[in-house]
Amino acid sequence: MEHPENDLQFAGLIVNKGISQPPVVSPYLRTRKKRRDYSPSEYTEQILKGNITVLSQAVTLLESNKTEHQAIAREIIENCLPYSGKSVRIGITGMPGAGKSTSIDAFGMYLIRRRERKLAVLAIDPSSERSKGSILGDKTRMEELSRNPHAFIRPSPAAGSLGGVARKTRETIILCEAAGFNTVFVETVGVGQSETAVHSMVDFFLLIQIAGAGDELQGIKRGIMEMADGIVVNKADGSNIEKAKLAAAQYRNALKLFPLPPSGWSPQALTYSGYYQTGIAEIWDMIDEYIAFTQANGFFDSRRKMQAKYWMYETIAEQLKNHFYQSPVIKKELALMESQVIHSEISSFQAARQLLAKYFKEL
Amino acid sequence: MEHPENDLQFAGLIVNKGISQPPVVSPYLRTRKKRRDYSPSEYTEQILKGNITVLSQAVTLLESNKTEHQAIAREIIENCLPYSGKSVRIGITGMPGAGKSTSIDAFGMYLIRRRERKLAVLAIDPSSERSKGSILGDKTRMEELSRNPHAFIRPSPAAGSLGGVARKTRETIILCEAAGFNTVFVETVGVGQSETAVHSMVDFFLLIQIAGAGDELQGIKRGIMEMADGIVVNKADGSNIEKAKLAAAQYRNALKLFPLPPSGWSPQALTYSGYYQTGIAEIWDMIDEYIAFTQANGFFDSRRKMQAKYWMYETIAEQLKNHFYQSPVIKKELALMESQVIHSEISSFQAARQLLAKYFKEL
Repeated sequence: MEHPENDLQFAGLIVNKGISQPPVVSPYLRTRKKRRDYSPSEYTEQILKGNITVLSQAVTLLESNKTEHQAIAREIIENCLPYSGKSVRIGITGMPGAGKSTSIDAFGMYLIRRRERKLAVLAIDPSSERSKGSILGDKTRMEELSRNPHAFIRPSPAAGSLGGVARKTRETIILCEAAGFNTVFVETVGVGQSETAVHSMVDFFLLIQIAGAGDELQGIKRGIMEMADGIVVNKADGSNIEKAKLAAAQYRNALKLFPLPPSGWSPQALTYSGYYQTGIAEIWDMIDEYIAFTQANGFFDSRRKMQAKYWMYETIAEQLKNHFYQSPVIKKELALMESQVIHSEISSFQAARQLLAKYFKEL
Repeated sequence: MEHPENDLQFAGLIVNKGISQPPVVSPYLRTRKKRRDYSPSEYTEQILKGNITVLSQAVTLLESNKTEHQAIAREIIENCLPYSGKSVRIGITGMPGAGKSTSIDAFGMYLIRRRERKLAVLAIDPSSERSKGSILGDKTRMEELSRNPHAFIRPSPAAGSLGGVARKTRETIILCEAAGFNTVFVETVGVGQSETAVHSMVDFFLLIQIAGAGDELQGIKRGIMEMADGIVVNKADGSNIEKAKLAAAQYRNALKLFPLPPSGWSPQALTYSGYYQTGIAEIWDMIDEYIAFTQANGFFDSRRKMQAKYWMYETIAEQLKNHFYQSPVIKKELALMESQVIHSEISSFQAARQLLAKYFKEL
């Protein structure tokens, strides 16, 4: 897919900058349209200096579907890789209605003001209905954070396969860390398949809930509660405080029934108010305690290594499948085979065997 | 892998049978060793008549790693497919120590005696340490069931990849159903990756727990509780009854915090005693209620269809990966790449790209 409007925008940006800057000789400038200002090493240099405008442009390149953009992005990422890894990465999920945007705004401002952190807020939301899902589709809902120079807010890469969207977000983490952001939030919606992807790229997974939501919270995906390193009940304010405390107590009891996760950490349940900004220090004390605990027992590093391996194997699996399902013979035969399998005319395994035989024959 | 001892055993079996049976002309008899008695259609015929000895031989063929055995097995499975699907398939999991063998024995005898069901008990246990895991490694622990003509008990296929082991179990379900077994248990151990595989081939997923087990139950895998359609607390007998009831109440409360599964069914928590055979009718009333409920709302059929599709796509993914990881160039390069990824010398995605490029070049 090409996005001509993005390219025009990009070109406009370059022209403006060209006036005040000396000409730079780069192989990427020798392309027909002369639309690039920086070479990959110049991008890297600016990112390492913490230049947020260039960081943002580099993320645009890695999100682009153009082969030439991707080639530059790959080089920037490999350059930045040695300077990455030094942030605390936190996954944040919760249903729409749980107050996620207000919470991320409050968490972020707390971290910037009280702890002098630099914060990048990213998202994974492969659904095409952006407005329904990710709060980052609407930056204005994070009023304070979006105006703060110590925060870098980037919406989810455009809709696509979960694997592709997740890869782009993970690569963006590398660039943000190289640019000096020492806290990274990765936000997701809690209704789809994205949580596993987020869980596989963060150090701590935080689930935002609200008290007594009943049916309205029934939409959160099963299995997410067992992924959480911490559950935080929002809207513990005014007449709602007791209800929120009760909900936290219930989660605490439920979490006791779960086995201890591989980190050895017992997940906690706390209450807070995103709107009134109370209880937020306690959440960050919990996360600090978790980081210290897992760094001491070695889990922090081993999880990071497992995640790096995971993404290599995951990318291989995804690309192998893409290649298979995009091959003409499979495109032609798949629907019929699937229908035969559903109607028990052929076993699942026999259908797979026949499709694989055709695929490898055509390669 | 070849298993010469199995072949000798098989050959011995054939020789004994050969005496009392007329010679059968089949393409499979024209092989060098003349070790086969039945053609695929004869196997099928006998299976459809409910001949358990032949069913057992067919399962041995499908578990074999010999290409010729697999070819026969495939034909039998495709022949049996139209006659399969008419059982209730129940996944049963629980930690060692929860009393799973006694429970399956009690459940099975209850179904055979009180409900006149024919029961096949299968297992998925890809670990090589069989004795530690599956109770079916030791049939003698299911004293009554193993001697009953209405029960067919088959241990897990030998250790191998989870995908391979699971495929064999799923194919065995087809054969058992064609042989007239109208209830199928698929047992698993609750500590590994097998639960997802079992969950993807059954209609109802039952989790066996015991009360107050504390740390000893911490080994059960996270995420399993959220897969369960029912949790049953064993050993509700003698002085343990109150503790078991309390545990069931706790599970009931915890289950309320979970969202409703796609079936629309609220998972139940019950108590029973496998040893004293009390509370078992209630468990089967619950399962019957579930089946009626999901048949009425259409989930039963749609889940079966989803599962058939799932196994087609799963098999394709598994075979694509096998082909990749067994190719000489990948075998040669993988360890180095993985080590570079772990030490952040190359990004996960760049490593995947390089390996994929080499693989497709060599194809």
